[in-house]
Amino acid sequence: MSASNREPVTSEVEFRVRYAETDQMQVVYHANYLIWCEIGRTDLIRKLGSSYADIEKRGIALAVVDASLRYHSAARYEDTIRVRTVLREARSRSVTFEYTIENADTGARLVTARTTLASIDRDGKLVQMPDDLRKSLEAAIA
Amino acid sequence: MSASNREPVTSEVEFRVRYAETDQMQVVYHANYLIWCEIGRTDLIRKLGSSYADIEKRGIALAVVDASLRYHSAARYEDTIRVRTVLREARSRSVTFEYTIENADTGARLVTARTTLASIDRDGKLVQMPDDLRKSLEAAIA
Amino acid sequence: MSASNREPVTSEVEFRVRYAETDQMQVVYHANYLIWCEIGRTDLIRKLGSSYADIEKRGIALAVVDASLRYHSAARYEDTIRVRTVLREARSRSVTFEYTIENADTGARLVTARTTLASIDRDGKLVQMPDDLRKSLEAAIA
Amino acid sequence: MSASNREPVTSEVEFRVRYAETDQMQVVYHANYLIWCEIGRTDLIRKLGSSYADIEKRGIALAVVDASLRYHSAARYEDTIRVRTVLREARSRSVTFEYTIENADTGARLVTARTTLASIDRDGKLVQMPDDLRKSLEAAIA
Repeated sequence: MSASNREPVTSEVEFRVRYAETDQMQVVYHANYLIWCEIGRTDLIRKLGSSYADIEKRGIALAVVDASLRYHSAARYEDTIRVRTVLREARSRSVTFEYTIENADTGARLVTARTTLASIDRDGKLVQMPDDLRKSLEAAIA
Repeated sequence: MSASNREPVTSEVEFRVRYAETDQMQVVYHANYLIWCEIGRTDLIRKLGSSYADIEKRGIALAVVDASLRYHSAARYEDTIRVRTVLREARSRSVTFEYTIENADTGARLVTARTTLASIDRDGKLVQMPDDLRKSLEAAIA
Repeated sequence: MSASNREPVTSEVEFRVRYAETDQMQVVYHANYLIWCEIGRTDLIRKLGSSYADIEKRGIALAVVDASLRYHSAARYEDTIRVRTVLREARSRSVTFEYTIENADTGARLVTARTTLASIDRDGKLVQMPDDLRKSLEAAIA
Repeated sequence: MSASNREPVTSEVEFRVRYAETDQMQVVYHANYLIWCEIGRTDLIRKLGSSYADIEKRGIALAVVDASLRYHSAARYEDTIRVRTVLREARSRSVTFEYTIENADTGARLVTARTTLASIDRDGKLVQMPDDLRKSLEAAIA
């Protein structure tokens, strides 16, 4: 963990819609946006100088405890998607991210979402985050 | 559509967790609960005397416009899951369902969720639901 | 593990197609049939008196090392699917299953498939299966 | 479609493993490799000067009729994956692709696979591919 300034850290990732992500309504199936949110927060955590894989190796998992999504318009196969992620809140045992998912070509807003994750140990018990992780999260709040 | 009484219609469906639904945290990946909610509301609509496949054949789709989930405890591989679905609100162009997802063996509450769906036509434009569908939904409100 | 006779053990499971399993071709996305095969072999292993979850608790995993699928016709949303699974071969370190996936209402054959799984330990190394598991598998060969 | 030389066309795409793609064996769930193969062939078709989305708009779909996969070693969360795709055979109504899926950092071979796709019309009937598509496929054979 290296980020120590007070600049909000944001993440922007882009990727194409996969055929497997569409449904028979000819648009992206709604549950997939939660997967895309995870791509966004994984990237943001990497930008903080750590990796979520490393956090898990230390015996801490960040489990989603709350999620809300608002669907504005639909993504389609082969669209290029942009996920912008910001860190909204960091507490000793939880952290809240917000996401804006857009069509990268048109800029159209597709989904806005918010997830809160709790830090748990290997037995699923709520635990405090390691100090270094918490500090780097706090420094990154938007 | 045959339900015409004022009894709230509820749905209960049970199934086992699939291996594909787990993740490396050894629990069910959080996006899968949205898929399980869809199994619940599909069953509830079937109980009203229609099928969602039939609704789509008439040119109307019900698209998720809002979803929120609260995760209480984790489901694991081979657990038997029970999804209880109720209809909370029906309007001319939208309908809201609520879900309680439990471990069917222990009764432990896993996830509570709520989704609102809008009725759209083949071009994705908001349209009023067909009268018979709306009436059967209204009669089923919990 | 209790099966000790020489009767071939077969499994038949039925379930409905989920909306999430469709793609924009209006049929079930082809990768989902591998997930359905897993439902079949999990059920067959349960019929042998064990559960795959228990096998993993003993430190043995059965990892797919080879898969082949032939797609005959397409499954659609809300179809009822039947997966018939037989055990074709059991060796000290691997086991081969065959699957016939049908539309349960029409009997139409959708997919035939075959997977070979190797028994590995927690480090991913090939190991011999526990004796009791191997014996019950051998007794169940179709 | 613009490729008219006799150079074999190959595709290489890279992406990171998503958390959603792991299972409780701590590796990528085996069905996901079929999704990754599709990413590879979509990219190869784009390199030929068309897009698979465009092909579908002309009323032709390429449906998987045969798939085989050999699993050599496991991919893990946050690994960078490379999919190399070549076109092995093109006929009037079908086309065969081969895939090598590797860990992009170590070069380790993860999965080799082969899929055959048939060209079908909107009713699911086998049809000849449009001439321009077939010619560009033939010119690209490895």
